[in-house]
This record gives sequence, C-alpha cells and structure tokens, in this order.
Amino acid sequence: MQFHHHGYVSGEPRVRDAAGSGIDRPAEVPDEMDVLIVGSGPAGMLLAAQMAQFPGVTTRIIERRDGRLVLGQADGIQPRSVETFQAFGFAERITAEAYNIAYMNFWGPDPENPRNIVRTVRTEDYAFKISEFPHLIVNQARVLDYFAEAAAHAPGRIVPDYGVEFLGLTVDDGAEHPVEVRVRYAAGPRAGEERTVRAKYVVGCDGARSGVREAIGRKHVGDFSAHAWGVMDVLVNTDFPDWRTKCAINSEAGNILHIPREGGYLSRMYIDLGEVAQDDHHHVRQTPIEEIIRRANDILHPYSLDVKQVAWHSVYEVGHRVTEKFDDVPVGEERTPRVFLAGDACHTHSAKAGQGMNVSMQDGFNLGWKLGHVLSGLSPSSLLTTYSAERQPVAQQLIDFDREWSSLMARKPEEISDPQDLATYYLATAEFPSGFMTQYGASMIVGDASHQSLAPGFPIGKRFTSVEVVRVCDGNVVHLGHHARADGRWRVYAFADAAAGAPADASPAGEPPALERWAEWMASPESPIMRHTPAGQDIDAVFDVKAIYQGPFEDVDISRVPELFRPRTGPLGLTDWEKVYAAGPSAWCTADIFAERELSRDGVVVVVRPDQYVAAVLPLSAPEELAAFFAQTMVRARQ
Amino acid sequence: MQFHHHGYVSGEPRVRDAAGSGIDRPAEVPDEMDVLIVGSGPAGMLLAAQMAQFPGVTTRIIERRDGRLVLGQADGIQPRSVETFQAFGFAERITAEAYNIAYMNFWGPDPENPRNIVRTVRTEDYAFKISEFPHLIVNQARVLDYFAEAAAHAPGRIVPDYGVEFLGLTVDDGAEHPVEVRVRYAAGPRAGEERTVRAKYVVGCDGARSGVREAIGRKHVGDFSAHAWGVMDVLVNTDFPDWRTKCAINSEAGNILHIPREGGYLSRMYIDLGEVAQDDHHHVRQTPIEEIIRRANDILHPYSLDVKQVAWHSVYEVGHRVTEKFDDVPVGEERTPRVFLAGDACHTHSAKAGQGMNVSMQDGFNLGWKLGHVLSGLSPSSLLTTYSAERQPVAQQLIDFDREWSSLMARKPEEISDPQDLATYYLATAEFPSGFMTQYGASMIVGDASHQSLAPGFPIGKRFTSVEVVRVCDGNVVHLGHHARADGRWRVYAFADAAAGAPADASPAGEPPALERWAEWMASPESPIMRHTPAGQDIDAVFDVKAIYQGPFEDVDISRVPELFRPRTGPLGLTDWEKVYAAGPSAWCTADIFAERELSRDGVVVVVRPDQYVAAVLPLSAPEELAAFFAQTMVRARQ
Repeated sequence: MQFHHHGYVSGEPRVRDAAGSGIDRPAEVPDEMDVLIVGSGPAGMLLAAQMAQFPGVTTRIIERRDGRLVLGQADGIQPRSVETFQAFGFAERITAEAYNIAYMNFWGPDPENPRNIVRTVRTEDYAFKISEFPHLIVNQARVLDYFAEAAAHAPGRIVPDYGVEFLGLTVDDGAEHPVEVRVRYAAGPRAGEERTVRAKYVVGCDGARSGVREAIGRKHVGDFSAHAWGVMDVLVNTDFPDWRTKCAINSEAGNILHIPREGGYLSRMYIDLGEVAQDDHHHVRQTPIEEIIRRANDILHPYSLDVKQVAWHSVYEVGHRVTEKFDDVPVGEERTPRVFLAGDACHTHSAKAGQGMNVSMQDGFNLGWKLGHVLSGLSPSSLLTTYSAERQPVAQQLIDFDREWSSLMARKPEEISDPQDLATYYLATAEFPSGFMTQYGASMIVGDASHQSLAPGFPIGKRFTSVEVVRVCDGNVVHLGHHARADGRWRVYAFADAAAGAPADASPAGEPPALERWAEWMASPESPIMRHTPAGQDIDAVFDVKAIYQGPFEDVDISRVPELFRPRTGPLGLTDWEKVYAAGPSAWCTADIFAERELSRDGVVVVVRPDQYVAAVLPLSAPEELAAFFAQTMVRARQ
Repeated sequence: MQFHHHGYVSGEPRVRDAAGSGIDRPAEVPDEMDVLIVGSGPAGMLLAAQMAQFPGVTTRIIERRDGRLVLGQADGIQPRSVETFQAFGFAERITAEAYNIAYMNFWGPDPENPRNIVRTVRTEDYAFKISEFPHLIVNQARVLDYFAEAAAHAPGRIVPDYGVEFLGLTVDDGAEHPVEVRVRYAAGPRAGEERTVRAKYVVGCDGARSGVREAIGRKHVGDFSAHAWGVMDVLVNTDFPDWRTKCAINSEAGNILHIPREGGYLSRMYIDLGEVAQDDHHHVRQTPIEEIIRRANDILHPYSLDVKQVAWHSVYEVGHRVTEKFDDVPVGEERTPRVFLAGDACHTHSAKAGQGMNVSMQDGFNLGWKLGHVLSGLSPSSLLTTYSAERQPVAQQLIDFDREWSSLMARKPEEISDPQDLATYYLATAEFPSGFMTQYGASMIVGDASHQSLAPGFPIGKRFTSVEVVRVCDGNVVHLGHHARADGRWRVYAFADAAAGAPADASPAGEPPALERWAEWMASPESPIMRHTPAGQDIDAVFDVKAIYQGPFEDVDISRVPELFRPRTGPLGLTDWEKVYAAGPSAWCTADIFAERELSRDGVVVVVRPDQYVAAVLPLSAPEELAAFFAQTMVRARQ
C-alpha cells in the first residue's frame, strides 16, 4: 500500500483525499451528471467504486431500497472475485470473515439402504490449485458494504442515493446529456415526488426485472425452467456431520446443495422442490418455510435438522435467460452506446453454480474503466462498444455452464450411473467457476497473438495471472499483480532481457541491454506515455510501467535502473521505489516468474488492462508496436 | 471468526453487541468506576481494548491530549505484537498498511576511502524464521487507532476520555473504591475544572514522566546516558540505494539507524548527535532540524538526502531506567495492589532496538485479564500481585538488552574489529527482539515443569507457539493458536492419545481412549469447568476447551467426539463446531503439531493463559492435577 507521497498521512491510509466531484459532493442527486447507475447490487456497487477513482467524472448511483441490503441473496465468491476485491483493497478483510471452501463433499443413497444417505466422495476445492485466491462464501450484503466503503473512501466520494426509483428513460443523441431519466423518490421526505434528470450514460444494474432493460426495449432470451428450489439460511443443531462442509446431496427424496456460511454456525440450503406443473402460475413460490424444512429433513434422512432460527428464505424457479446485447445500440447500427445493462439485468440463471454475483461484478469491472477513460477524454467513445461485445458472450457461456450443472444436480439417483460423476465434472471445469476462463477476443483493446510465444503463460485476452517476485528496493516478496489496484490505469510490465541489470562490465560490448533501449524510447515523444498522458499529470497517471529483472534482486543496482522505472510524482516530486522487481530466487522467494510464465529470456512487454486482462504481448525490441496498440484506443493528449 | 451464534448478524461482524457497562455508557467520566486507566499510549489502549471484553467491569481511560495521537513516537512492531494484534482482530489490516522488514543491511566505512560508506552485509530479518508473524514498522498512531476500534467495538464499548489530566491520587484500602483520584479537564467546555473520582484500581500508563508513578512514590532506577540522538520522519529524494531497507549505518561522521516506514516513501532516521557534556542541561534537545539533516548527509556521504518534507522530528538523550516494582505495594508488604504502572511509566530506554511499544503492550496484556478476572469474581485479588512479579524482570531484561545493543550501535569505526559483529548480534538474539523470549516463572498461574517432557515444544511460562492444524468440521487448515482471541478466557488444549478418534473397532478392547476418559471427568462436578464457571453462563465462558486428534481429519468422526468439545452455547444453544482439530496430514496441511511440538503420543493437556502464555502441561490421565492448578487461582463459582 503506497501513501504519504502527497505529504504525511496520519490517519487511515485507505481513505484517499477527495478530489474533483468528490469535493463538496451534493447530498441530492443533481439535475445533470455524467454517469447514472441504476441499482446498488454487485454490478452497480463495483461500478460505483470504480467510478469513484475518476473524480473528474460525476457519477451517481440510485437504489429504490431505502438503505443497505440486509439479508439474503447471493453468497458464492469465486477466486476471480477475491482477486478483484484485492484490487479494490479489501480482500484480506472480507476473507477473514468469510467461510473458506476447502472441500466439496458428495452424498448419495446408501446402496445397502437407499432410504439413507451416505458420503460418496470428498473432493478438495479447486481454488488453491489454480490461483493464490480462495473460494469463499460470504453474504452479498457484506460484499456490497465493502464496495460502498471503497466508493466512499476514493477521491470521488460516491455514496448510493437510497430511496430513489427508476421510472423510465429516453435517449436524445444530440444533447450534451443525451439520456433523460425519470425517477421517483421512494422513501424519505420527498417520497412520492417525481423528477427528471439527465446523464451522459446510464447503466442498468437493476436486476432480473430491470426497468432500464425494458426502457431500451431489450428482451431476455431463454427459457423458464419447470424446476423449483427452496433456499434457506438457517441456524440449526444437527447430527449431519457435514453441516460445515459444502455438499451436493442426492437422495431418493430429492436434492440439496448445502453451503456453509460465514461465522461458523449458519448454513444455506438449496432444496429441490421438484418439477413445476405448466399451470402452476408461480404457485410454488408460496411454499411455506415449514414445508421446505420438512423436505430438507426428508432428503437428509437418517440425519435431521433442529432449526433454531431462519435468517432468510425464498423459493424460486430456475430460469436461464440472457439479453442479446448489453447496450442500447440496435444490432447492425453504429453509434455511441448511451445505456448499458449489467448483472441480472442482462443474464439470469440458477444459483447452483455460485456464479451470479461474480459474473455481475465482472460486468461492472469491464465497463467502469471504459466509461472513466471516455469521460476523462483519454479514449474515444467507440471504446464503449467493446462492453457488450466482450461481456455478452461471457454471459452466454455462464448460462450454458449453469444449465448443465443444474441439470446434473437435479438428477434422480436412478439416472446416475457413476456416483463420482458430479465430482468429476466439478473439478474438470474448475477454471470456469473460478472465474478465470474468460478470454476476450481481439479488438481495439485486445491485441493479436503474433508475439504470444514470448509469454505463453500470459494468454492474451485472459486475466493476468500473478506470480511472486522480489521488490528490489527492500527485498520484500510480493505478488506482482497485487500492486495493480483498481485505479483505472493501464499496466505495462517490462520483463527485462538477461543482459539488463547485470553488472556493467558483464554487458556485451557496445550494446546497451534491450530494456534500457526500450526505456529510452518510452521517454521519446512517440511513446504512448508522451502521447496519451495529459499535460500536467504525473508521468504514471495513465500508464503504470514496471520493470522485472531476471535473477536475484541483490544483483540489481537500483541506482542504475532507468529513470522510467523510478518516476518522481505527486506534489513533492518524490521517487516511487515500487516499480522495480526481480524474479528471484531470494531467501524468501522460490518462484521465478520467467520460468513459471515461460517468458522469453530476451525480455517481453506485457500490457494489462485496468480490469486486469492481458491486452498485448510485445517484444522489447519493437516499441513502435506498443505505440500502435495504444493509438487504436487512446486519443493524443499532447503534441 | 465466529458469529451469528446469538442470531443472524447482517452487518460488520467485528462489532459485537454491547453488554453490561457498554450499554448506555455515559459520555462523562462517572464519579466511581472499577478501573481507571491513565494515559492512552500502547499500554493503556491495549488495556482498554482488553477491559472492553469484560463488560461487567466499568473501565474508563483518561488522556490529557484532546484527541487521538497524530504524529511521531514509536513505530517498531515485533512479531509478538503482531501475534497480539491477531488476538485483538486486526493483524491482517495493520500488516497490509505497514512496512515489512525483510532484510537489515549494515553499512560501514569503505576501507579504500573511509570518508565514504559502503554496504558491508545484508542480513535476512529473523521474523519468519521463528514464527508465522512478520516484523513490521508502522506509526504508533495507527496502532492506537486499531486498539481504539477494538475497544469501541467490544461489548464494553470503551472510548478514551480525551482532555482529562491526572493530578494525583491517594489510596484508602478500607473503601469500596479505595483509590481517590484528582483530575482536571485540560480541554473542552469544562477546561480548567478539577474533579475527584474514585476507582477500585488505577493503572498509570502515563509515560516516562508518569504522574501516577510519582503519586505512589515509586522511583525510576538507572542512568541518564550522555549520548544524544536526533530522530526525524522525512520524505526525501536520495541516491542512497537502501532508503527502503532497514539499515545500521556506521561511518566516520557518526551513526544512523535507518527505518523505512509504511506507505513506500517515508523513512525514519535516528541520527547520532554524539556525547553530551555533563553541563549540557538538555541543551542538546534544542538541536534544529537543519542540523540533524546536515549530520545525516554527513554520515551518508557519498550519498545525500534532498528532504522534501519533515513529518516529525525530535531530539532525546538515551536513558535506561526501570522502576523497582510496578505496583503500589511496598516491597515486603502483602496486600492487594491498587495502583499499577505500565509502559514507559516504569521502563524507559533507547528506541534503537525497536522494543518500547512492544514491551509496553505486553504489560497491558498481562494486567488486563487479571483485572478482569478479579473484578468479575473469578479469581481472588491476590492474582494481581503476579503483575509486577512477572513484568518487572522483563523490563529489566529489556534495559540490559537495549544497553548492549545501543552501545554496539554507537561505536566508532575504529572500535569495530569485525564488520559482521552487529549483524551477528542482531541475528543471534532474534528471540528477544521478536518478543518471544519472555518466560514467566512458576506461580499461582504458571505451573511447575514436572510434566514438561510430555510437550517439550510448549515451554511452560513462554507464549504458546502455534502450528497449523486441520479443522475437522470443514477440513480448513487453520493456526490452532489463532482461534484464541483476546477475550479473557483460559484455553485448555487436549491433545488426544493415539487411540482416540480411531474407528471404534480399532480401540483396545474394554478401555476407552484417554481423551474420552478425560472428557468425561471434565464434565464431572470436580472439573474446573464445573467449579469455576459461574452458573447461568455458557459452558465455555471461562474455559475454551479444544481437542486435537492425531492423524488425518478424515479419520475423525465428529459425531463420536465427546460433547465437551461440541458444546451448545449462546441463547439459541447452537453447537460450536470449531473446537475439534486434527494434526494432519491433509491435502492442504503439511504440518504435524504432534511432531513439531514433540507432543506425547499418549496425549497431553496444555493450558494457556488469556494472554497466550503456556500455564501448564499435564497428562490426560491426571485430570485432578488440572483441577488443583486452577484451584490456586480461581474461586469456586458454584457448588
């Protein structure tokens, strides 16, 4: 965590100085704003926290509810989401209060007495096998609390406007604030009052029955399943030995997905309520909690639950639906999107795979920096067309995965030939439910694969997979990727050639190392830094450029590292010491990022987007390709 | 982290329900209270946070300053302190914002050009070699902030009473509140007003010039050194390559102890200002910052500092002094102590070894639970005599260590024969500066060593050294010791015999495993639980009893574990699942606590005090010895 660089900070360093629209931010929604977010669920709140990093942009977030979420809803947190929390600064805190999934156990009918269930297999959870982040369970309410804190503590000082309901919108592309939005106060002293406000962009994060989606005429495509599930968060005493372990329970009496929750006592159960008749007309949703508990006990036989408190319960029918496009531009038409959809507003599905909140948050993470860059004048508005292009296919994959997973879970015992079936599927697909399988295709912000062979371990279009490295200035072992916070900046990692950093007399005569030549070019007028960083801003305000040397950190003489990697920034012009790393080995570091990510020993440049996806892999020797890449997506900020 | 056991909690789980004196706690200092803490430094604030866990006790903490500490003072955090922060619930947060010491480098005169300094040796810091906790640097102000939060969020809801100055006290042992204290409002609307309040106990945490110490007539014993040091917290640009590494710099022009600080930019320098003449009369304290910076530059030659901001600076003369006793009972007399001293009020020394704040906090940790237990009626007031008996020798050791360390650091280059000298001393003594060397002698709360051979890895009188184990209920790998929070409870770890937990048919015929017999006895009327846990309280309210089985967690059938280790507690009578552990191995756990701590395979009981020190090591087969141990220090709460 870096601070004090604008002068000494005595208090909580996570609270940054207010800036721009965060200074004297009005308590009331203004008549005009840059971005209006509708809905404060996971997509909307992440987006608010991200926009608060762009205090030059005025953002508001309205929520019909009159205060914070108190109960229920999603709770599954995949490793990619914890990685995202890390970027927003609260991973360690939420992990400390969450339930960590170490195992998933599977239960089925006892072959000797099929009326009883028995544990058929224990499987180790996949999380720590594929990343340094855990697989957690924690109430959505707490996730929103942490994003709310991140938004409130960031320079833009964004806080949700509770008790304000979205009514409708119209887009007039000629106006400076093209979206006219009608809202109504749903709570507080102005309750019942209607207002019209105007925004440059509106983001509908308003859930499965999205009013924003309806207003732009987008349709959910897909089926309503005829299967119903009851869900309950309960405090119980029980003789079921796996009460604190995630389980899929498949019995003659039906199925349960069992999810232990944070705090050591509470668990959530998804209980199969069976097929729903065509003419049910959602009657199943009236199933009383007593009936859900009775079913649970029936499925768990010979074990039983003595329910002491029901914290929350609900009944829903599984639907798998996705909107064909996530913005308001009709297919085939080319103009700047003005209205976007994110989260449940554009994709709904079962809760079985624990994916919904996670995918919704990534919608917000994908869109946030793009809005920030366009509204800050760094990028052309065409950047915004990539949002739907990138996220709609991800939602479609999610629907497909979830449909398969929830049918597998809803099978009757006689349909199951191999009891290891579910466990095998669960582990084989680990990359998907971890959130790491998303790979964006080539576009103005994802380069082609022509130099992928220089860094096979950083697949272009997938999220940057961190490795531990040694920080040269102090010898601390740190995760290279964790230094990148959700601050809206591009990351440029310059992995050095073998000659760089070696003692001066060890370099081949007459030829400076490739890293030094690259660094020199990056200070020239044609470098993306010089072209796209607005005048008057810190040299690393848009591009955070880091060097990673091969070999032990003791071999790197930091006073000889190119100044590009030791920029002087902030009002005091202080040297930033945390942009120079070494691959190791060291006393504390056994990893070697060059070996683990198969990086070329001639060096390689890896460009990472503000939302942590690898955008380009380029040779150190061709810096003009880097310039060409950024020229596609950024405007020239200075001559 | 365990919560929801008193019913569902929607918000921040770290905020516990207010109870007892924490409900409707008056904003104003009352006329009478149980405990009055004078001073809100590290000793006082830890003590306040600890007392807030005893809401049946009324505690106030007064501080002359009109608000939180803003600047300066101590910053070194030894691993034992991080362990303590863990118990108070904020280790992960403060670690995330602190500077982690990975290396300590030593600099000396360049043999070829003695006017210049050169790096002579790099040493890896000791922290991770001796525990799972780091060695940190972070501003004392932040440490106090976190303790203040812990105190405010605990059931007692304690917040400091700022702007209240201690004037004096008298003790009248006949009264119900024997200590009469005079205070004056130093700030706020009542500024200047004097009051008399009464307390059962007063703790002087009021620093080196302690008024409480003076009031009870205790004297600081020791010397004033004739060596002066300047200290500054500065933001600079520099070509000194180790600006971000802890260094001891020994040059012809003097010495510097260089301490990088949190945030990536700031560092603290202790700069040798040389011998102080006998007739200086503290004139050296007037040394201007410009002179301190000039000296620093001189010592660093050929490197130099371009100081951009001085956050804080001070000059002090090194003293090594300790009070002969830390309470108000004269040597040789036997009565209940009523006034205690903690922190700088009873031991002062140089800042060189980074120990002061750490030892002060342990004073508070040692005293807090004792006050809590006596005032809650669990223990006789004689328990309070152990405070001075245990802590005064620790302070004496600290003085001795610091005197040696600071003389080593203040040597002139010509006095140093081996440049590795300092480095060797630094590493050889690692256990002391880590805070782990303290070993309390036998007393009413520290048992004798007669059964030490059952658990050589848990030395009696030293702090409990945690090892990773597997939580049986969910297969998570957790540090056994980290489950113990600073909640004032005794811990009793029952390490199982090999027969326990094995499948029923594997037990020797006719003889239940020793663990089961022990558990059965612990439910009998003669067990300490039954004797000393007040009626009406949860069965684990005073003794937190855990079982640790040998072998993999999959082999433990939790439904067959004795109910002692699965107590039902809280208003809902919910099963606590987090008291049953296994040594491993498992997919995620390579540690084996039985092997690492050399525990008897016949099982062993390890008793740990509320301040985390091992109090007793006893055989499973002699539970009456456990009863005898607790009978020394606890009153019989029920018949």
